[in-house]
Amino acid sequence: MRPNNRNLNQLRAVTITTDFTKHAEGSVLITIGDTKVICNASVEERVPPFMRGQGKGWITAEYAMLPRATEQRNIRESSKGKVSGRTMEIQRLIGRALRAVVDLDQLGERTIWIDCDVIQADGGTRTASITGAFVAMVLALGKLVDRKQLKTIPITDYLAAISVGIMPNGDAVLDLEYLEDSQANVDMNIVMTGAREFVEIQGTGEEATFNASQLQQMLELAEQGMTDLFGYQKQALGTYADLISEREA
Amino acid sequence: MRPNNRNLNQLRAVTITTDFTKHAEGSVLITIGDTKVICNASVEERVPPFMRGQGKGWITAEYAMLPRATEQRNIRESSKGKVSGRTMEIQRLIGRALRAVVDLDQLGERTIWIDCDVIQADGGTRTASITGAFVAMVLALGKLVDRKQLKTIPITDYLAAISVGIMPNGDAVLDLEYLEDSQANVDMNIVMTGAREFVEIQGTGEEATFNASQLQQMLELAEQGMTDLFGYQKQALGTYADLISEREA
Amino acid sequence: MRPNNRNLNQLRAVTITTDFTKHAEGSVLITIGDTKVICNASVEERVPPFMRGQGKGWITAEYAMLPRATEQRNIRESSKGKVSGRTMEIQRLIGRALRAVVDLDQLGERTIWIDCDVIQADGGTRTASITGAFVAMVLALGKLVDRKQLKTIPITDYLAAISVGIMPNGDAVLDLEYLEDSQANVDMNIVMTGAREFVEIQGTGEEATFNASQLQQMLELAEQGMTDLFGYQKQALGTYADLISEREA
Amino acid sequence: MRPNNRNLNQLRAVTITTDFTKHAEGSVLITIGDTKVICNASVEERVPPFMRGQGKGWITAEYAMLPRATEQRNIRESSKGKVSGRTMEIQRLIGRALRAVVDLDQLGERTIWIDCDVIQADGGTRTASITGAFVAMVLALGKLVDRKQLKTIPITDYLAAISVGIMPNGDAVLDLEYLEDSQANVDMNIVMTGAREFVEIQGTGEEATFNASQLQQMLELAEQGMTDLFGYQKQALGTYADLISEREA
Amino acid sequence: MRPNNRNLNQLRAVTITTDFTKHAEGSVLITIGDTKVICNASVEERVPPFMRGQGKGWITAEYAMLPRATEQRNIRESSKGKVSGRTMEIQRLIGRALRAVVDLDQLGERTIWIDCDVIQADGGTRTASITGAFVAMVLALGKLVDRKQLKTIPITDYLAAISVGIMPNGDAVLDLEYLEDSQANVDMNIVMTGAREFVEIQGTGEEATFNASQLQQMLELAEQGMTDLFGYQKQALGTYADLISEREA
Amino acid sequence: MRPNNRNLNQLRAVTITTDFTKHAEGSVLITIGDTKVICNASVEERVPPFMRGQGKGWITAEYAMLPRATEQRNIRESSKGKVSGRTMEIQRLIGRALRAVVDLDQLGERTIWIDCDVIQADGGTRTASITGAFVAMVLALGKLVDRKQLKTIPITDYLAAISVGIMPNGDAVLDLEYLEDSQANVDMNIVMTGAREFVEIQGTGEEATFNASQLQQMLELAEQGMTDLFGYQKQALGTYADLISEREA
Repeated sequence: MRPNNRNLNQLRAVTITTDFTKHAEGSVLITIGDTKVICNASVEERVPPFMRGQGKGWITAEYAMLPRATEQRNIRESSKGKVSGRTMEIQRLIGRALRAVVDLDQLGERTIWIDCDVIQADGGTRTASITGAFVAMVLALGKLVDRKQLKTIPITDYLAAISVGIMPNGDAVLDLEYLEDSQANVDMNIVMTGAREFVEIQGTGEEATFNASQLQQMLELAEQGMTDLFGYQKQALGTYADLISEREA
Repeated sequence: MRPNNRNLNQLRAVTITTDFTKHAEGSVLITIGDTKVICNASVEERVPPFMRGQGKGWITAEYAMLPRATEQRNIRESSKGKVSGRTMEIQRLIGRALRAVVDLDQLGERTIWIDCDVIQADGGTRTASITGAFVAMVLALGKLVDRKQLKTIPITDYLAAISVGIMPNGDAVLDLEYLEDSQANVDMNIVMTGAREFVEIQGTGEEATFNASQLQQMLELAEQGMTDLFGYQKQALGTYADLISEREA
Repeated sequence: MRPNNRNLNQLRAVTITTDFTKHAEGSVLITIGDTKVICNASVEERVPPFMRGQGKGWITAEYAMLPRATEQRNIRESSKGKVSGRTMEIQRLIGRALRAVVDLDQLGERTIWIDCDVIQADGGTRTASITGAFVAMVLALGKLVDRKQLKTIPITDYLAAISVGIMPNGDAVLDLEYLEDSQANVDMNIVMTGAREFVEIQGTGEEATFNASQLQQMLELAEQGMTDLFGYQKQALGTYADLISEREA
Repeated sequence: MRPNNRNLNQLRAVTITTDFTKHAEGSVLITIGDTKVICNASVEERVPPFMRGQGKGWITAEYAMLPRATEQRNIRESSKGKVSGRTMEIQRLIGRALRAVVDLDQLGERTIWIDCDVIQADGGTRTASITGAFVAMVLALGKLVDRKQLKTIPITDYLAAISVGIMPNGDAVLDLEYLEDSQANVDMNIVMTGAREFVEIQGTGEEATFNASQLQQMLELAEQGMTDLFGYQKQALGTYADLISEREA
Repeated sequence: MRPNNRNLNQLRAVTITTDFTKHAEGSVLITIGDTKVICNASVEERVPPFMRGQGKGWITAEYAMLPRATEQRNIRESSKGKVSGRTMEIQRLIGRALRAVVDLDQLGERTIWIDCDVIQADGGTRTASITGAFVAMVLALGKLVDRKQLKTIPITDYLAAISVGIMPNGDAVLDLEYLEDSQANVDMNIVMTGAREFVEIQGTGEEATFNASQLQQMLELAEQGMTDLFGYQKQALGTYADLISEREA
Repeated sequence: MRPNNRNLNQLRAVTITTDFTKHAEGSVLITIGDTKVICNASVEERVPPFMRGQGKGWITAEYAMLPRATEQRNIRESSKGKVSGRTMEIQRLIGRALRAVVDLDQLGERTIWIDCDVIQADGGTRTASITGAFVAMVLALGKLVDRKQLKTIPITDYLAAISVGIMPNGDAVLDLEYLEDSQANVDMNIVMTGAREFVEIQGTGEEATFNASQLQQMLELAEQGMTDLFGYQKQALGTYADLISEREA
C-alpha cells in the first residue's frame, strides 16, 4: 500500500495559485501533496553576454530550498558561500526544460529569470518546480503581450514534469513522496510536452539497476500523470491558456 | 496624506499565521501590509563551538530575501557566493534582539536557529522578522515543553520591533512602507520588550540629521505601535501565551 | 554521412592503457577517437564523515578538463575559485554510476577516489570517463586483493557508458563526436551493466523533443555499443578480469 | 571608580596626528586612550557604477583591524577570504555617517575612499574611526581645493562620534574603554554634527534592556563629549578649519 | 651514491614530445625521469586590461598538478576553491621566466597562455615546466609565423631551467628527484638563457644555510645541465629551431 | 647619482622601534627610508595540525599592505576575498627565512605568528619585514624566557634581509627604494645569518638577465649591508641581545 492509500498511478493533490507575490511578472505557488514551491518569473530587458546581438531571448532558472523546508535544517547556501552540485543540477535542468517550449527568436533580446524557491519539501521538488515555473513563465510572457511588448506568447507547447520510480517490491509508481523516494530502487524524472514528446529523461538506479521493461512501465505512468498536470496548468492560466496552443498528442 | 490614508501613528494590517510550514518546530508567516516574511525556528541539540561546555543555550538568526521579493529582482546571495553587508547587519540584529528575552541558562546547551525569509518586501522587513521570529521561537520552545525537554518556556518577556521615521515634511510616522521609507529623512528601527524597555535603537539620517525633539516623537510612536504588536503575538501564541509572562510596563 | 565515414552504430576507435601514471593504485588512459581521459583511482583508508561507523565503503569521483583540452581555452576552475555546474553534474554522475556495481559492505570503511582528467576533448568525455574509471577502480581494488587487504574484488558486474543521439536528419547515432554533439537535436548518455541493465539514462532535447520510438532506437544503439566497450575493458584488466564476474545479459 | 580614575563624563586622552603616511591625500592617526586608528582618505576621479552620470560624488569606507590589535590575535580577514559581519556593519556605518555632512553634488563625480585601520584596540574603535576619518576626509578635500580641483571644501558641518553606555551599577558613562565595554549592560554609539544634531544612534542592550531615562542620560553624555572632539578636530585641521563652517548648535 | 647511480652532475633521462594534444597552438609532453608535465601554449588575440593599448603582448602561465600526480593524493584546488601559495609562486615564476626571452613589442597585442599540468611528479616539476613551456611557446609562435600573423618568431634566446642542491653529506647535485629533494639541505632553481645568463635564481635553505663556495658549485652544475637541456629543446623544435637564434655563451 | 645622493653601497636610514603596540608579545615598527612596517609576533600555545605530536614548534608569517601604503590605492585583499600571489610569495618567504634560525625542538609545541603590516611602502617591504620580524620574534621569545616558559631563547643566529639590484646603467646598488626598484634590470633579495651564510637568494631579471660577475657584485653589496642591519637589530633588542649568540662570520 502507498502512503495515503494512493494508487500506483495516482498523483498527489495539486494546486496552482497564481499572483502569489506582487512584484514578479509571473508568480505561482504550486503545491503537490506537501511539496510547496514558489515559482516567480521575472523579465529582464537584456540577455547574458554570450547571447548578445543575436536577436534571441534566454530563459534561465535558479532553485533553492529554505533551510527548514526539510525534516532536518540545511545550511543556507549563501552562508556556505557556494551552491551545491544538487542545486546546480536542478537549476540547469529547469532552465533547459523550459527553453524547449519557448520560441527564443520571437521572445527577442530578453531574459526570463525563473526563481523556484521550495518552502516545504516532500519529494518531487524539481518536477514541481518545472510544472509551476511553466505557468509563471507564461503569465510573465502574457504580461508582455498585455503591455504590447510582444504580439503573441512565444510558447510552442505545454510543458510539465513528474517523477516515477520502482519500489523495492518491484512496483512502478507515479509521483513519489519523500518517504517513497528515500526507499525507491530507481528514481526517474520525466519532462514532457503537451504533444507527449520527451524533453528530458533522467533515470538513476543508485545501488540498483533497471531493465527495459521497467523503463517502459515508468514512461507510461509518467505519460498518464501529464494529462492531469496539463489540466491544472490550463486552469491556472485562465484566459492566457487560450493564447498558447497545446500541440496534439 | 500617507499612502492608504493611514494615520501617522497607525500600523499597517498585521497577520501572524502559525504552523505555516510543517517541518520547523516553530513556523510563522507574518504579514505587515504587503511585507510577508516566513519565520521558522529550528531546535538543534548543541551549541556553536564558542559556547560549548557552559551549560547555556544560543539563539542565532539568518535572514534572506527571495530574489523577486522586491520591485527589481536581486541577485541571489548564494549565486554571488557571499552574504551582503545589509543581510549580515540584519541577521546579527535579529539574533541579538531575541537573545535579550531568552534565559539562555534555562534553555540549556541547545541552539534555536531562526530563519527569516522575506517572500514579499514592502518596507520594514527586519522589524517584521523580529516580531514574527519571536512567535516562532516561543512555539519551538513550547514544543520542547510539550515533549518534556524543558520544564517552562525560558522567555523573560515579550519582544517586538517596529520602524519609525521623519518624512521630508517633518512628520514623524509609524511603520513606514517602502514608498515612505525611500523618501524619509530619518529611518529608525526600535526593538522593545513587553515592559516597554528598549532592547535596540538604530536610527540613521542619511544625508539628513535629526534633533532631540524629533527623536522623542519617534520613540513615542514606536511605543504606541508596540501595544498592537504584542496583542497580535499573544493571539497567535494561543495557549502558549499563558506560559510566558509579559512584564508590566 | 558521419564524420570519418562511421556507421550509425559504430564506436570510434577505443584504447585503454593501464598503469598510465605510477602513483595511483589504478591508473588508466582511455581514448575514444580524439577524446582522451586519464582516470586515476586512489584508495583512502577512511570514509567521509557522513559514512563513518557503518562498516561500508564509498566511491567518489572528480572530473576536470585541462584548460586547453578544447578548441577554445577554458578558464581553469581553480582560478575561478569554483567548480561549474557542468563539472558538478558530471562528477556526481560518475560516482553514482560506479557505486551501482560495487558491494560497499564488502569494500569496508575505505574510499576509492576517482579522478577523471580530460586531456583532450572531442565529445563523450563523461561516458569515456565512466568507462575508463571502471577499469581504474577494478585495478585499484585488485591491488587491495594482491596486498591481502581484501579477499575478493567487491564488484558485482561490469559497467560502461556511451552517448547516443538524434541528428537533425532524424538519424539515431552511437558515440557522438564533438562535431555531431554540437548539432544533435537530442543527446543521451546511457550507463549499463554487463547484464545490460540500466544504471542511468540521461536524455535531453534542448530546443527539441523526442518521441518514444526515437528513444527506443537510441537505447538499442547504446546496448550494441556496450558489447564492444565491455570487451575493451576485459582486455585491459588482463588477469583481474577473471576475478570479477560479468552477470549474464 | 572607572579605570584610570576617569569621571563618568570624561573622555580619554585624544590625539590627532595629521600627515601620518605620505601617499594618502588625507592621512591621520587618531588615538583615544589606547585605541589607535590610522585613517587614510584617498581621492578617486570616478564614482561606482550605480552613481555614474548623476554628477554627484560618493564617500565609501573600509575598516579593518591588524590581527594583533587585540588581546587575542584574530585571524586576518583576507586569509579567511571574507569580511565578517561586524566589519561590514562598521564600514557601512562610517561611510553613511560621513556622507551626512558632505555636499555630494558639489563634490562632483569623485569617490573619497576612507580606510580606517585599527593598529591597537581598546574599545571605541568605530567611533574613533569616524572622528579621525572626518579629519582625513577634510584634508583630502582641502588638497583638492589647493590643487584648484574644487572651489570650496564641500562639507556642511563638523562630524564626530563617541560611545556611551550603562554599567552594571547603573552608571551612565562616556567613552568606554575595552574593560568597561565588555562589562556594560548597554552600549550605544552616537554620531553627531557640529550643530548637535544626530546622524546616527545605535544602542543595544544584549541580555539587558534600558529605559527612556537611561537613554536620556546617555544622549546628554554624548553631547558633552562632542564639544571636546570638535575642538581636537579643529586643532588638527589647522588652516583648513577656517574653510569649513561649523553650524551653530 | 645517488638513486639510479646517477653522477652528481648528471641529468635524468629527458624526452620532449611535441603535438601531444591537438587543440593547443603549441603542445608538449616533457618527461624528466619520472616527472611528466603537459605544457600547452594557447594564443589569445588580446591582452589583459592592464596591458591594453600599449601595442605589446603578454605571456602568462598557469600550473597545476593532477590530484594523484603525487605519492599521496592532493585535494584538487578547484574543489578547495582557491589556488595554494605554492601554485601561485610557481606560475608567477614560469610566466616571468618566459617573458625574459620574448620580444613583447614584436609579439603585438596578443597573450600567450601557458598551461603546465603535471600528470606525474618526481621532483623538479617547476623547472621541467619552464623547459617544456619554452618549447610549447615557440611552437605556438611558429604557428603564428606559418599563418603569416607574425613575420618572425619574437624570441631573443633559448631558455631552460633546472634544480640543483646540497645534500646532507655536503655534495652539490644536479636535477634532484623527489627522494633527494625531500632530504636536501639546500634547494635551488635556476633559469638561464642560451647565452648562459641568469634569468632567475631561487635558492633556499630551510632549516639550513649555505655559503658562497657552495653557491658557486651549484651555479656551475646548473650551467652544465643547461647544455643538455638546450640540446633537447632544439631537437624537439625541429625546423622551428632555425627560426630562433641562440645567443652565444 | 642615486636619489638622496646615496652611495651605491649605502643603506637608507633605519630605525627599529620596539613595543610599538601593546598587545603583541613582540611588537616592532621598522622604518627603512620611507618604508614603514609594523612587525608583531604573537605566541600561540599550540601548533598547526600537520605538526602536532612531534614536540616541535612552528613559525608562520602573514604580510599585508594597508590599501593606501602605496602611491595608488590598492583594493583590500579581504574585500577581494583572496590573497594575491605576491602576498603569498612574501609571507611564505618570511616564515621560511625565520625558521632557519629557530631551534624548533627547543621552542616546543608552540606557534609564533608573525604579522608584517606595511603602513607605508617605498621599496624593500619584504626585506624590511624580515629584518623587523626577527626582532619582534626574539622579543616574543624573550618574554617566554621572562615568564619561565622557556629556559633560553631558542635562536641559533641573527637574521636579516636586504635587496640589491642592477640599474640600467649597469651599477650594482644596495637597498633599492621604489623609484630605483621600478627601473632596475635585476632585483634580488638576500636573507643572511649573522655568520654571513645564505638562507635565501631570490634574484630575478624580468625582461633582462644578469651574468655571474654581476651576481658576485650584488652578493658583496648585500653582505656589506648586513653588518649595519645586525647592528640596528642588536641595539633594538637591548638586554635580550645578550641572550642570543651571533655566530662568527
